[in-house]
Amino acid sequence: MNRLELIGVGGLPEVSPGDDLAALILAKITLQAGDAVVVAQKVVSKAEGRTRNLADVTASDEAVRLAARLIAAHDPRFVQVVLDESVRVLRSDRVLITETHQGFVCANSGVDQSNIPGSEVVTLLPIDPDASASSLRSRLREISGIAVGVIVSDTFGRPWRLGIMNVALGVAGLPALVDLRGRPDDAGRELHATVLAVADEVAAAAGLVMGKTRRTPVVVVRGLEAGKSGRGRDLIRQASEDLFR
Amino acid sequence: MNRLELIGVGGLPEVSPGDDLAALILAKITLQAGDAVVVAQKVVSKAEGRTRNLADVTASDEAVRLAARLIAAHDPRFVQVVLDESVRVLRSDRVLITETHQGFVCANSGVDQSNIPGSEVVTLLPIDPDASASSLRSRLREISGIAVGVIVSDTFGRPWRLGIMNVALGVAGLPALVDLRGRPDDAGRELHATVLAVADEVAAAAGLVMGKTRRTPVVVVRGLEAGKSGRGRDLIRQASEDLFR
Repeated sequence: MNRLELIGVGGLPEVSPGDDLAALILAKITLQAGDAVVVAQKVVSKAEGRTRNLADVTASDEAVRLAARLIAAHDPRFVQVVLDESVRVLRSDRVLITETHQGFVCANSGVDQSNIPGSEVVTLLPIDPDASASSLRSRLREISGIAVGVIVSDTFGRPWRLGIMNVALGVAGLPALVDLRGRPDDAGRELHATVLAVADEVAAAAGLVMGKTRRTPVVVVRGLEAGKSGRGRDLIRQASEDLFR
Repeated sequence: MNRLELIGVGGLPEVSPGDDLAALILAKITLQAGDAVVVAQKVVSKAEGRTRNLADVTASDEAVRLAARLIAAHDPRFVQVVLDESVRVLRSDRVLITETHQGFVCANSGVDQSNIPGSEVVTLLPIDPDASASSLRSRLREISGIAVGVIVSDTFGRPWRLGIMNVALGVAGLPALVDLRGRPDDAGRELHATVLAVADEVAAAAGLVMGKTRRTPVVVVRGLEAGKSGRGRDLIRQASEDLFR
């Protein structure tokens, strides 16, 4: 039988800029070769110093205008940070859906107010989540000698379906997409249009263990099949090929 | 530590209309109270007789016209079945994205050609996936005496991101959405806009074990927290509240 195990890694201390995330993780769990380590974007961003203090932000007229249209009472300075992190605003009616510099389409450019002690500090997405994943992977290997995959994840909403789900922003050392096109299915027919978003499924699985209010920002997924390493950016549909952008 | 286990249940025989899916599953695995049993839509549809034979289908002019615009070489009779299963066509350029009678937005109304011996037979989505999940749940309990959750899943594509992912169409006996609004987060702040699509995360996790070419249409997820039972239809964003439809 085909089995997978998901292990939540809790009890990490509050993360600060410059902290060695790999060392903090390895202090809590013994990794095995082939494990996938899924890390919530928030702790990666904190370790990388990807935060801003709203006290240092001045809202533009555009930010003030947009803030007034949103359902949740948003600080115009928060909206300004969202705009600073975006290349394009897709929707600004009720919620703010943007395309980020990294190419992600998500609410509020992934800028997040919650879970940060001191309410004026917000977290931003890593500048290059694939590089973040890659660097964490190298450091985990350096300390432990064990080769693992790493995913930097965040929870995103989506059209058509309700609720947010954990998705893979950055990927290193494991597949992002698995292309089954051309492989025969069980009945010997050629499968078409079957590219599996494996890294997103791994992130989603980890999301079940992370929850949102529990202090479990790291989840180890054990038992995945090996495959060709991919990158988080492979999961981004280009705007020119996106029928819904 | 918070742990979850995923167990693939393979080796099921080819499923035919009227088959007792619960008995087939229980012949392969001993369930435990609180397990979530994720079943691929395809075997549910086969057991329910939700298939059509293209030999019995006559393509309309509309189906012929649409078939010519698609990337993959599609049989106009296949397109006719897709139209029959839909209430609305959202996109028909290159791929066919429809809204189904059940309210799902997906490619080809979820109609599927592959994995069926005899190439003229296609599978359709269950008429009411929540009822399918509920009925399978009752029958599993009837035979085994064990109360489990059931998800009927299928792989859907999505805007903005590449690749298909396993999602929950029908849900019984476990939560679909978990609403964390109003609960404090780790820093004691109130979380806003945080509704987790838990059933979709469970389906995605199961998707990792199901793969696509492996004969593993059933995955047991063990270790989930209990919660208020939801339905698959809770996960569907209403068209009127959908900014991208």
